[in-house]
Amino acid sequence: MQELASNGSVSVTWRHRVHTCRHAFADEGGALANLLPCDSGPAQVLIVLDEGLLRAQPDLPAQLSAWSDTHRSLVHAAGAPLIVPGGEQAKNDRTEFDLVVRAIHERHICRRSYVLALGGGAVLDAVGFAAATAHRGVRLIRMPSTTLSQADAGVGVKNGLNAFGAKNLVGSFAPPWAVVNDTMLLCTLSDRDWRAGLSEAVKVALLKDPSLLFELEHTATALRGRDLDVMERIVTRTAELHVSHIVAGGDPFELERARPLDFGHWSAHQLEQMTGFGLSHGDAVAIGTLIDLQYATLMLGASSELSQRVANCLESLGFPLHCDALGEEDRLLEGIERFREHLGGSLAITMVTAPGVSDEVSHIDLDCMRQAIRLTRRRGDDRASRAG
Amino acid sequence: MQELASNGSVSVTWRHRVHTCRHAFADEGGALANLLPCDSGPAQVLIVLDEGLLRAQPDLPAQLSAWSDTHRSLVHAAGAPLIVPGGEQAKNDRTEFDLVVRAIHERHICRRSYVLALGGGAVLDAVGFAAATAHRGVRLIRMPSTTLSQADAGVGVKNGLNAFGAKNLVGSFAPPWAVVNDTMLLCTLSDRDWRAGLSEAVKVALLKDPSLLFELEHTATALRGRDLDVMERIVTRTAELHVSHIVAGGDPFELERARPLDFGHWSAHQLEQMTGFGLSHGDAVAIGTLIDLQYATLMLGASSELSQRVANCLESLGFPLHCDALGEEDRLLEGIERFREHLGGSLAITMVTAPGVSDEVSHIDLDCMRQAIRLTRRRGDDRASRAG
Repeated sequence: MQELASNGSVSVTWRHRVHTCRHAFADEGGALANLLPCDSGPAQVLIVLDEGLLRAQPDLPAQLSAWSDTHRSLVHAAGAPLIVPGGEQAKNDRTEFDLVVRAIHERHICRRSYVLALGGGAVLDAVGFAAATAHRGVRLIRMPSTTLSQADAGVGVKNGLNAFGAKNLVGSFAPPWAVVNDTMLLCTLSDRDWRAGLSEAVKVALLKDPSLLFELEHTATALRGRDLDVMERIVTRTAELHVSHIVAGGDPFELERARPLDFGHWSAHQLEQMTGFGLSHGDAVAIGTLIDLQYATLMLGASSELSQRVANCLESLGFPLHCDALGEEDRLLEGIERFREHLGGSLAITMVTAPGVSDEVSHIDLDCMRQAIRLTRRRGDDRASRAG
Repeated sequence: MQELASNGSVSVTWRHRVHTCRHAFADEGGALANLLPCDSGPAQVLIVLDEGLLRAQPDLPAQLSAWSDTHRSLVHAAGAPLIVPGGEQAKNDRTEFDLVVRAIHERHICRRSYVLALGGGAVLDAVGFAAATAHRGVRLIRMPSTTLSQADAGVGVKNGLNAFGAKNLVGSFAPPWAVVNDTMLLCTLSDRDWRAGLSEAVKVALLKDPSLLFELEHTATALRGRDLDVMERIVTRTAELHVSHIVAGGDPFELERARPLDFGHWSAHQLEQMTGFGLSHGDAVAIGTLIDLQYATLMLGASSELSQRVANCLESLGFPLHCDALGEEDRLLEGIERFREHLGGSLAITMVTAPGVSDEVSHIDLDCMRQAIRLTRRRGDDRASRAG
């Protein structure tokens, strides 16, 4: 077997631009418009809007329309905003994906044009997969509308759809053209969605930034009281840690083993599946984080004070740590193999042993993990009965 | 609007491995098996086989099975080969894509496992899109089975499906783990598929390598007489030029403007669509190359001897330069805008003015292009009537 003389490496570099602002379409609208360069005339923009966000902020289409009018030398809306359903259902089949691909085709959005997507993580995942694959990639501006997506997935480089009953079975790595976190989009969230990004904040604090954990503990009351300034600070810091992991972590497309930002996620994903997504990702990550902290206490020498401390913090932030599915231990434990298979290769699970200190383990002691699940369950049940 | 402190660049590098051999599964089978590293035990491999190739070479499953048995310490076939339909139909809906994604899921192919796909360009495109997006990318070994795919698309970094009537509307850039051009797969091709890679060879010779054009002219009779040694040399050289463009051209994912290897392709793609893919890609590229050479003669100072010379060469190689769809000039000319839109941004069409010399034009004179189409049509009709 002969190698071609011209064999070599394929190297590609993208700029990862994440911005924070308030009122992106009002006073500061020029900054947003300037993120959409075009080599001839105004940039063509297909606007995609999460139905749930539209219900909460019904004046958004008028704001968008005023924005594109004001900046007509820079941007041109290619037709009315495309309104798409949000929530996990957006990812469960290809209806939404097809809607966006068809609009890209019919409205003549080319590789140098833009899709501007406003919505929660599920919409951004479905729309993002469409934008990443139509014409093999048109430019995507993400405007995440939830604390979870602004802090976590919305600033990352992934997209995905569920298929054949498996979460994110189909998707791609595709850096967006830009991400704009407009925190005014967060004001109208339900309490559940308002808090959802905070369990990811606790997770990334445990992995990377002990001072963020302190801040979360000390601002929990303000956060629960919906203080937007504090939320903006927490979301921005969490997003920064996430982006830093992507741009400086050395493996943005996960071609190698490491993925330390998935702490607590093997069980979180499985609990979501088990509850038919009745349990939100934010609430699931809170529970998943506690399970793995309990395991780290039992097996890896973490202090029991740490899991106490984190459980208290999560409770103060408003997370219900109770979930009936924790009783189905066998099914929950299947999440470990699912997690391994989705990442590929041999098992590698990141475990936090102290704030800012983590280890990758390649083996899970199942008896001990059952014990960790039971401890987590007991804690959640106690809390639920105290509350009730 | 505030940039995140951690903003930066996302850089990813893939090794692009293209190999040539004969009898990949026999004597040299260890070389193929060694292309599939695995960090624990034998590599799991999902084999996907083009139905048309299987009909032509019915002993392939036995060869594959003997190969995986012989190299069982290195590879393990995850179930029987998946047999999939070939030809453009493979790309026209998502049946084949879904079949492969489902098999990846059900047979537990993870990101560190392999899909080994044997087939023509359409199968590699559909299977490649499935492999590139299942789990956001499992490792793909391509074994192109046609001269066209071995010389051109099979050694590239793209995949794709047709959608909403548009060719390759959905797809991705995804470097395969490796490409193995086993020229024994070419022996059983029909004459049409045997010659199909040669119009791409003429095209790339015109763009990049005048000596390859000489070689094609001087070996045309041997090539038409199905001399495998000569074909292997031409296919390998064409693939080398293609790979060199990808790894050294500076823009493997086409994020910028340049795509000089698409010479003659705006009309080729349109003619394929217009004939409902009755005209093969190889035959369409032969005609498309001539159209743009005629245009270069009329508008850009290319010598008329060059288009004569290339027409003669293509005829000697067996290409029928006749196509009724050339009569529908208006519809054919729509291909220019389609081409622009698929690449994005403003129009950029590469035109060859002498062997090895090309220019990018940003405007096409439509009257002159009509003239070029008519000249090409006349040449094809003359030839057809001489032959008839």
